[in-house]
Amino acid sequence: MGVPEASGARSDGGRDVGGVANVIGLGLIGGSVALALTARGWRVHGEDRDPTRLDQAVRKGAIAARGVAPDAVITFVATPVSSIADAAKMALSATRGVVTDVGSVKGPVTAAVPDPRFCGGHPMAGSELDGLDGADAALFEGAVWVLTPAADTTDETFAAVARVVADLGAEVVALPAERHDALVAVVSHVPHLTAAALMTVADQRGEEHAALLRLAAGGFRDMTRIAAGQPEIWLDICAENRTAIVEALDALLDRLGGLRRSVAGDDRDGLLAELTRARVARVNLPARAGAPAEMAEVRTAIPDRPGAAAEVFTLAAELGVNVFDFEVFHSAEGRHGVLILVVEAAQTDLFRGGLIARGFRPSVRRLD
Amino acid sequence: MGVPEASGARSDGGRDVGGVANVIGLGLIGGSVALALTARGWRVHGEDRDPTRLDQAVRKGAIAARGVAPDAVITFVATPVSSIADAAKMALSATRGVVTDVGSVKGPVTAAVPDPRFCGGHPMAGSELDGLDGADAALFEGAVWVLTPAADTTDETFAAVARVVADLGAEVVALPAERHDALVAVVSHVPHLTAAALMTVADQRGEEHAALLRLAAGGFRDMTRIAAGQPEIWLDICAENRTAIVEALDALLDRLGGLRRSVAGDDRDGLLAELTRARVARVNLPARAGAPAEMAEVRTAIPDRPGAAAEVFTLAAELGVNVFDFEVFHSAEGRHGVLILVVEAAQTDLFRGGLIARGFRPSVRRLD
Repeated sequence: MGVPEASGARSDGGRDVGGVANVIGLGLIGGSVALALTARGWRVHGEDRDPTRLDQAVRKGAIAARGVAPDAVITFVATPVSSIADAAKMALSATRGVVTDVGSVKGPVTAAVPDPRFCGGHPMAGSELDGLDGADAALFEGAVWVLTPAADTTDETFAAVARVVADLGAEVVALPAERHDALVAVVSHVPHLTAAALMTVADQRGEEHAALLRLAAGGFRDMTRIAAGQPEIWLDICAENRTAIVEALDALLDRLGGLRRSVAGDDRDGLLAELTRARVARVNLPARAGAPAEMAEVRTAIPDRPGAAAEVFTLAAELGVNVFDFEVFHSAEGRHGVLILVVEAAQTDLFRGGLIARGFRPSVRRLD
Repeated sequence: MGVPEASGARSDGGRDVGGVANVIGLGLIGGSVALALTARGWRVHGEDRDPTRLDQAVRKGAIAARGVAPDAVITFVATPVSSIADAAKMALSATRGVVTDVGSVKGPVTAAVPDPRFCGGHPMAGSELDGLDGADAALFEGAVWVLTPAADTTDETFAAVARVVADLGAEVVALPAERHDALVAVVSHVPHLTAAALMTVADQRGEEHAALLRLAAGGFRDMTRIAAGQPEIWLDICAENRTAIVEALDALLDRLGGLRRSVAGDDRDGLLAELTRARVARVNLPARAGAPAEMAEVRTAIPDRPGAAAEVFTLAAELGVNVFDFEVFHSAEGRHGVLILVVEAAQTDLFRGGLIARGFRPSVRRLD
């Protein structure tokens, strides 16, 4: 594994964005992607099964044209979860560019679309608003956008999707689809079901005198806010991510059952231990990254094997290293490439250690 | 039941606040009460078992003097839940004024302190900050402050405490102690335990790669925020409100178990029904009141029986009628009095209907 010269042509879409893109499905997320791309100089073609919404997207300036452009360098599939795989396959045959999606569950679609030009994705941003009306070009700024490259996904595809997503203001995190699904079951899907259950219990109890629920303070309002979302979306999510959700629900039922026993039995020590553990975990919940004082550039050769670039991003996520910017260079003659990542200076030792352990040969340069 | 002239002396503390008050226990809530009273012209005496904190309260300007003033017209007990009853009894024997507390559970203390001059209370406001350092004179502005008058509490005591609490910027809601406790089990205590359980499940799952929890979006952060609170406080709350908490936990476990069965069995109809019910309940969760366009004054005689004034406030809470201001007049010669409440003009018919049904004889005047 040598270090090639970073002299090759840029095949990742680079900084000079503004080509042609497709967005299929123009709801809250698809509409926001279209608006954000348009705002950054892309010519966006859009498609939606609802002609009224398609008209609305044109009027709103989210898309420049109707239909799927064959010369699009990237296509975002933002349809309901159950139709993503079909729409992605259609986009792969209709265009020669890369294709990604924005669904909340990644295992099934990743398995259903084995293609070098496909890389699944999930922007972890949302809104209480529904549909195109709630779409916002700034929705992804500062949000985490998970990409789930599969064995078939080439480094070039991953890098091209990652480049565009990063340019929309999101932080790119790469994860295997199964790990993504297990994680969102715990931090998103089960919390949503729990919010619904809490709200229903309060509703049952408050039936006689619903006005008393006005007394609910900010904590309860915070905890149940997400229960106001569209139920239909959650039916698909629960079906697609069933195994991980049931597993996480069982873990929660176990924990809550333990707390119930501690309260009923006045087991103060057990209760204290459980609440303290939760407190420590919440206080240590890693915060979203702000801009660090000092940055450094980590440069590493990418060997000639599929998924090497994505592996670097996955490692960064596992180590808690925030990637603030990146570029991928591929040499013109071969598949070798160089990946340059901008990270916080204080995290370079940690990141360098991990990269060396995985067989990469990184070099570090401080940015002043 | 006649309508006496509103000619009597004002025995409710009235608008001319600024007498002497005691605050026993100078943590987050007690410190905030002391600061808010001081800011409104009261001379506040303070007591705390921790002499360092007492010094800090003087330096911070929260209290003007150490110790319990015998001539205080009101004493706030803001000690930990387990010592409230003793502190309240001490204050009742050391002063001739009214005594209230700020504990999160009201049944036990209400039963333990049967006194005409005692009226339990619970400001439903909090902060993620702990102790006197987090104290804030504005903590109660716009918050609901529940008062739980017991059979022994006189109308004069209730009205005096309510007057001071309203002047601190809070909205007064009167409820029987048992109803308060059942309600807070559902909207506060069980949500807190649930937040802790969710956080622990995420922590368990994230153990290998804790950095991935950084991916948790706003919904999860909102739902687990309250788990960062001091565990010790919750041990007392769980002990004092055990029955209501266990009952609410059982209801939640039942709901979550049902959701688990629906997800595992792909019961889309069952899941849709449950999530839709929760959505409707959350969307209809009564919002905290803003200032309405038109106000009206509802005036009613208070008959000569204990708890009549509190009953009017309880009825308002049950009907969802917001009391924006109020005054209580007692005739000099007897126990008869007149209660004047300022409410939203659009709610006067509802309120008048309820009052008549309960045997009051209200009259309404629009305020222009």
